[in-house]
Amino acid sequence: MNLYAERIGTLRDFMRQNNLDVYYVPTADFHGSEYIDEYFKVRTFLSGFTGSAGTLYVTLTEAGLFTDGRYFIQAEQELTGSGITLYRSGMENVPTPEEKLKDLLADGGTLGFDGRLLSYAFLMQLKESLPDTVTIRHDMPFPDELWSDRPALSARPAFRLAECYAGKSTVDKLSEVREAMKKVHPDAIYKNGASERFHKNTDHTADVYLITSLDEIAWLFNLRGNDVVHNPVVLSYAMVTDTKAFLYLNPSVLDADTKKQLENDGIIIHPYNSIYEDVSKLRACPVLLDAKRVNCALVQALPKECTILDATGPILLAKAIKNETEQKNLVAAHIKDGVAVTKFMYWLKKNIGRQHMTETSAADYLLSLREKQEGFLEPSFETIAAYNANAAMMHYSADEETAAVLHPQGFLLVDSGGQYYEGTTDITRTYVLGDIPYEWKQHYTAVLRGMLALSDAKFLYGCRGINLDILARGPLWQMGLDYRCGTGHGVGYLLNVHEAPNGFRWRIVPERNDSCILEEGMVTTNEPGVYVEGSHGIRIENELLCKKGEKNEYGQYMYFETLTMAPIDLDAVLPEEMTAKEREILNNYHKKVYETLLPYMNEEETKWLREATREI
Amino acid sequence: MNLYAERIGTLRDFMRQNNLDVYYVPTADFHGSEYIDEYFKVRTFLSGFTGSAGTLYVTLTEAGLFTDGRYFIQAEQELTGSGITLYRSGMENVPTPEEKLKDLLADGGTLGFDGRLLSYAFLMQLKESLPDTVTIRHDMPFPDELWSDRPALSARPAFRLAECYAGKSTVDKLSEVREAMKKVHPDAIYKNGASERFHKNTDHTADVYLITSLDEIAWLFNLRGNDVVHNPVVLSYAMVTDTKAFLYLNPSVLDADTKKQLENDGIIIHPYNSIYEDVSKLRACPVLLDAKRVNCALVQALPKECTILDATGPILLAKAIKNETEQKNLVAAHIKDGVAVTKFMYWLKKNIGRQHMTETSAADYLLSLREKQEGFLEPSFETIAAYNANAAMMHYSADEETAAVLHPQGFLLVDSGGQYYEGTTDITRTYVLGDIPYEWKQHYTAVLRGMLALSDAKFLYGCRGINLDILARGPLWQMGLDYRCGTGHGVGYLLNVHEAPNGFRWRIVPERNDSCILEEGMVTTNEPGVYVEGSHGIRIENELLCKKGEKNEYGQYMYFETLTMAPIDLDAVLPEEMTAKEREILNNYHKKVYETLLPYMNEEETKWLREATREI
Repeated sequence: MNLYAERIGTLRDFMRQNNLDVYYVPTADFHGSEYIDEYFKVRTFLSGFTGSAGTLYVTLTEAGLFTDGRYFIQAEQELTGSGITLYRSGMENVPTPEEKLKDLLADGGTLGFDGRLLSYAFLMQLKESLPDTVTIRHDMPFPDELWSDRPALSARPAFRLAECYAGKSTVDKLSEVREAMKKVHPDAIYKNGASERFHKNTDHTADVYLITSLDEIAWLFNLRGNDVVHNPVVLSYAMVTDTKAFLYLNPSVLDADTKKQLENDGIIIHPYNSIYEDVSKLRACPVLLDAKRVNCALVQALPKECTILDATGPILLAKAIKNETEQKNLVAAHIKDGVAVTKFMYWLKKNIGRQHMTETSAADYLLSLREKQEGFLEPSFETIAAYNANAAMMHYSADEETAAVLHPQGFLLVDSGGQYYEGTTDITRTYVLGDIPYEWKQHYTAVLRGMLALSDAKFLYGCRGINLDILARGPLWQMGLDYRCGTGHGVGYLLNVHEAPNGFRWRIVPERNDSCILEEGMVTTNEPGVYVEGSHGIRIENELLCKKGEKNEYGQYMYFETLTMAPIDLDAVLPEEMTAKEREILNNYHKKVYETLLPYMNEEETKWLREATREI
Repeated sequence: MNLYAERIGTLRDFMRQNNLDVYYVPTADFHGSEYIDEYFKVRTFLSGFTGSAGTLYVTLTEAGLFTDGRYFIQAEQELTGSGITLYRSGMENVPTPEEKLKDLLADGGTLGFDGRLLSYAFLMQLKESLPDTVTIRHDMPFPDELWSDRPALSARPAFRLAECYAGKSTVDKLSEVREAMKKVHPDAIYKNGASERFHKNTDHTADVYLITSLDEIAWLFNLRGNDVVHNPVVLSYAMVTDTKAFLYLNPSVLDADTKKQLENDGIIIHPYNSIYEDVSKLRACPVLLDAKRVNCALVQALPKECTILDATGPILLAKAIKNETEQKNLVAAHIKDGVAVTKFMYWLKKNIGRQHMTETSAADYLLSLREKQEGFLEPSFETIAAYNANAAMMHYSADEETAAVLHPQGFLLVDSGGQYYEGTTDITRTYVLGDIPYEWKQHYTAVLRGMLALSDAKFLYGCRGINLDILARGPLWQMGLDYRCGTGHGVGYLLNVHEAPNGFRWRIVPERNDSCILEEGMVTTNEPGVYVEGSHGIRIENELLCKKGEKNEYGQYMYFETLTMAPIDLDAVLPEEMTAKEREILNNYHKKVYETLLPYMNEEETKWLREATREI
């Protein structure tokens, strides 16, 4: 019998013992993280499907897995023999997982899941969409005993980020958070677990603030760790009251000195899991939490007498607005990162066709250059090095066995980034390895024109990404092209490379929460692209720091400072398709790149860099 | 005693008789119209303030009037001696009328007003913001007997718009409306006058649809009239059920033939005011209405057993999407309008400095040219002809006494439009009358560049005005300039020159309702500008018809066809500040203007037009 069919069978025994008709397994941790650690990979354990995104349901007679277009082929292969039906999300007539649940439970029944893996907002939606005859059991974690060699919860060492990097002490951050708790503007207020009513124009004071997003906790306590791949965060929860601050984590991750530092800041450290018991003992009081982010098991653990103020907490925005120290550090981080990327470009352009290279060996070489930079910790995400047609797959990921060999022709797209003490970076360059068709140059030039226009935007305070997106996308739209994603995302400071609430996108996608007003100090990527299936992919990405410009009778003007410092390959540029203004923006950028990186280049690299950043 | 102080005194007697503590007088008719007829000018009658926008409140001891920056000086003069306090809306520390009411009624009391002048949404807001101890009397119309020579309700002749103009029969429109009534997606559902709950994902069937916006009624019944200045509408209400359609109006406005036509379409005609009694007799059923538009007296007249489905009705969007006949006619209307405007430009440029001209005499001459066009009915709004510094006032309006004399120097801004059987037009040109400073040319060129960029937009279906606005505004923002208004508004078809739900604007303003997805067939103005107080004003306005372009794997592309056909004064253009692409768009436009208008020009005009539309 297939291993996974067997595991599903064991799960069904558990379901029968607990009278569950449907068991639901999302891909998630207890904190709504973008990437999840090994402990949390129950869906993979049960189904055999190893992709990064997927949702599994199991009934007593059937099972189904939902995943998106990136994984259709892989999922089909991996699910073979498991008896699990593949649902190709996004294809016509394929239900969403929520619709499927509604269908499975149309005549009532009991649905079980681990409530720590799903948000309170999700639970509220479920309650609304499922018939009243359905019982929802959110207290049904997947039993450890059914997964004999289950990895332990990550407990890697944590460390304190010094104030010269963080720019603001935890004590100051806590005091600002407490100030904000006095004036909460909730989207909804819940009592007794039911939506009581919507308040639109009233402020509330929160006595307790529950924080469960790992990057928010890391920011608040100036704490970093290594519990989620690429995200230097610590598995933890936090609770802030008007006088106290509780940090819930595995105490073994703190060395004595770090523990002492935290305690000196007045932080009370409790074991990771004890937050569930602690919140259950709260007196009746108003509790601020973000129902879209806090898991429903934790919310359900609150006494019924507590009033839930559902709102985005103050940390999300405070974290996105980089302070002056962070901004200064980010400039330094991007120079280091730019040095690595530029030396990589030099190496690539010089050696292509002369030595054997593959997508992965190139990526490895780039990593080795980053590792030489002081203060580099790890890549900020898995490097995408994609050759020609592979680059048309936006989320392409090669392994050593399947990696394409690079030849002196076509494009190599490299999207990579680093975690440094001085901040997080994210850069994409598309390199010309040799001959390319004229059309590819046209595409490349249009992508570049869009990237430059957005970088050069000057706009009144109050603008959001939706107002500016067309600057990047316009040149492609004029040609009947497009990229099927946002133009850019917020970036954390030695934190998650994808961060809310800022971004560039033309359609508001509420669940993305990336359309806030652009504030001074926010960092957003600018990465338009062209993706032609079976042919080629182009993306050029710089990071932009939002700054205040002049203020006059019309309002406060804003503009962007480009943080990313690395040449844009001129070998694919058609200068005649650019306006004089666009060439000027590019030339000014290249002049700055040259002057900034010069001190870090050897003689040969300097000579090459002068040419690579030449005026056009 | 001041006449208005006396009138306020008489109102106070009425208030005492009815135990009213506060009486509230907005500037409105029973239909939420943009312009109001003489009958409705109670606020002017009571206060003496004649501006187009203002809100009056009266208590037993004080009275106040709120108006905006356009009218501060005028209101101050007109209110002198009335004892009415002027509230300068928008200035620091000045409350809104709603805040003032809250303040006046903080300790309870009775508020009275004519509920036919305020929307149901406004009433719901009032109820939420005022203390529970406040009694709201919406059944307190201003008594006719206190206004001895009050003008009668307008009852000007109505006429039917032939299908060759309307493009669709009332029977067909009714059947589409009824189809839409089967699938209503309400924003809110009210029962017993109280908000019961929000439904987000459920559809409802409406048995009755109440329509009170005059342009919506005119559109549905292919009926036009003259009851609101510049808006060719008929004072009326309408009620549609799944089998019947009721039209409420003063029967004297219909001649026998028009009445017959309407009856042949199955429309039941009732007297204007009887809708209040008719709705009070409805059986318990779901009633579709737009709470933001339907007056609260009418909603309160519904039996408590009726369920109110608060949603934007289907007519708003259907009316905004011009059908093929309307689109074809609009092209013709804009040629006629363009002929008038172009002949005006020729006359102006030729005669400036040679004959005496003022702002109003120029506007009169332009009107005389429009009147020569077949099918012209009336101006679609009051012409703005503003010379130099006057044009910096966006809503400048001259009268013969105050009108500036035009000299052969500076700018004349003319914003005007016409109502034709073939549609409604709106065009602004800024003319060079002689020498102008170099800076004015820079401003003019920037405005022009923005106007051209927006006209030339190509975008994926799904875009809204907020996505495209920066194309028009960007060149000005780059210079640290801005205009403090939207870039453009929807335009009706032989209806209101300002029409929801389409528009161009960078910030969503919910009450404007002008940020819908741009659909094929929508007509929107494109009118960026520069306004420098005390110096000059520039606006260049074309109307854009939204069209479908190519459809490919990225989606449906959309673009604009420019409807407006009149030269843009090249005498203020700095070609060296434009890109080659911008010059190409302008040259192509001028080529089309020349070719289109040629047949209507005499020899001298043709010679001039060739030069006025020359390539740059």
